[in-house]
Amino acid sequence: MRVHVQNDPDDPEFLIAPEQWHAAAADEPQHEVSFGATAEDFRRARDSVELLVGPPAALRRLRPLAAPHLRLVFVNAAGVDGLAPFDWLPPGVVLLNNRGTHGPKAGEYVAMAALMLAARLPDLLAAQRAQRWHRLPTPVLAGRHAAVIGTGDLGSAGARQLRALGVCVTGVNTRGTPHPEFDAVVPVAALDALLPRAALLVLACPLTPATLGMIDRRRLALLPAGAGVVNIGRGKLLDAAALCDLLEAQHLGGAVLDVFDREPLPTGDRLWTTRNVIVTPHLSCDDPESYTHRSLGVLFANLRAWRAGQAMPNLVDPARGY
Amino acid sequence: MRVHVQNDPDDPEFLIAPEQWHAAAADEPQHEVSFGATAEDFRRARDSVELLVGPPAALRRLRPLAAPHLRLVFVNAAGVDGLAPFDWLPPGVVLLNNRGTHGPKAGEYVAMAALMLAARLPDLLAAQRAQRWHRLPTPVLAGRHAAVIGTGDLGSAGARQLRALGVCVTGVNTRGTPHPEFDAVVPVAALDALLPRAALLVLACPLTPATLGMIDRRRLALLPAGAGVVNIGRGKLLDAAALCDLLEAQHLGGAVLDVFDREPLPTGDRLWTTRNVIVTPHLSCDDPESYTHRSLGVLFANLRAWRAGQAMPNLVDPARGY
Repeated sequence: MRVHVQNDPDDPEFLIAPEQWHAAAADEPQHEVSFGATAEDFRRARDSVELLVGPPAALRRLRPLAAPHLRLVFVNAAGVDGLAPFDWLPPGVVLLNNRGTHGPKAGEYVAMAALMLAARLPDLLAAQRAQRWHRLPTPVLAGRHAAVIGTGDLGSAGARQLRALGVCVTGVNTRGTPHPEFDAVVPVAALDALLPRAALLVLACPLTPATLGMIDRRRLALLPAGAGVVNIGRGKLLDAAALCDLLEAQHLGGAVLDVFDREPLPTGDRLWTTRNVIVTPHLSCDDPESYTHRSLGVLFANLRAWRAGQAMPNLVDPARGY
Repeated sequence: MRVHVQNDPDDPEFLIAPEQWHAAAADEPQHEVSFGATAEDFRRARDSVELLVGPPAALRRLRPLAAPHLRLVFVNAAGVDGLAPFDWLPPGVVLLNNRGTHGPKAGEYVAMAALMLAARLPDLLAAQRAQRWHRLPTPVLAGRHAAVIGTGDLGSAGARQLRALGVCVTGVNTRGTPHPEFDAVVPVAALDALLPRAALLVLACPLTPATLGMIDRRRLALLPAGAGVVNIGRGKLLDAAALCDLLEAQHLGGAVLDVFDREPLPTGDRLWTTRNVIVTPHLSCDDPESYTHRSLGVLFANLRAWRAGQAMPNLVDPARGY
């Protein structure tokens, strides 16, 4: 197949280098592959490319996507909200994401955040900054209840780690479809009933028109006193101002946030300094040692399915947005 | 048996209240129990007491311990270094600690610290204080190597949680006695060979003349670049000045410390502010919801063994110091 990999020169972290491609493609049939980073690089490939590969930032710059033989676009990211709306995708061209790449790192981040919030580490860090020996003994995390919004790669990896720590985990997805990594899964319609018993709320779902602003002020207020919030999905899932208000009012115990409405989070943003907020710069799910290798593994699994005439597991439904 | 519980009025956290005693003692034969906090309280019990129970701070105040019928002293703590040397213990009186009380909480603390250090959270927290979006993607913790000094209740609980996270854990104890929670156990004599491949060093052993200053400047320097250090044992196990030097020189990646040479850690101490040190105030192993109940469960298990003429599992050997 004629493949073109378009990298983002401003983001070397998600770059796919020729040697990485060839190492991961060892069991693949011979493809004709080109690599580029500029508009001119893509122009040279445009008339022949069948499979286009790249991170969202690079693909965004290629729109409108006029490539007469294009059949597949593989986005080197799990969240494709940055490419929506999908009207730039030529009719009949299949869009794939790299869902499945992020689980191991995401699970560890969720476990870390859950342990930190249960141990009231944000309060202890504030005491440390004041050089104050402030004993705040806390019960174990084991035995508490967590609600995880999203039962995909990220949410299920988080649930697996939380359950290994003895946490009782209820997942939330559109229809309440069961998933083996969760103690229970409920539909979004049951979310309001779930929140009052969730000591921990983890957001790990895609951003779509249906999830935009889902965790609003009213729902945050339904969480029990002292609850913790973790966001590894997208910033716009959550009302950040309401979160800050509830943290300042000491209704919520703390928050560990990796994703934000605007990224990079602007200097002066209230989230940087709000009591008991831990800010990390959108890295909760990215393992630099394995990212490209795992991602290309996902791509090649999809190509094998495609060649065999089977359903591709990473098909993005532009109407759903994930 | 005639029991006296001497509480520490300055430390209500480890207080054993009459209702807690009676709830935990439901299956015990009837004991005659008194509770006190002052010297006068103890004086009233002194001539009859057979089993004395209390935290180290309270017991320390009763020395010299002149009680003609005393047979057993149960220290409501795992580390008894604060009561050493043990020349105050009348000949023939058995000393017990509450080893076995702290595991669940200690294991969670070690997991939290390991995940934080692997994710370079100390660096990320510094970036947050500067409101700086500083991406530092890190590989997963799974697959790394940890060295855990001490294979008792704390060390084995830490090892269990680390192994559940996919970490390869080598324990260190006096003779290299194997333990099922560890991938391997080596004797202290092999420690220097172990340190260069330990991305994480966890101190979870008692403070004794043999372990005092065990992790000195030379041994800290044997750790690989970027390694993390966790201390849930005792402050004096470690050369804190050398640790700070190696963190400032960016040889070590970070440290999560719960115990200190002097506690409370004095205002102005270098550890409060050294780059990438997380200070918590000696609470890594204490779950306030379960502490007294678990501790009394340990005591009663020892009393059952004693009545049955079996070895008591929590016997402290004053010569070893644990």
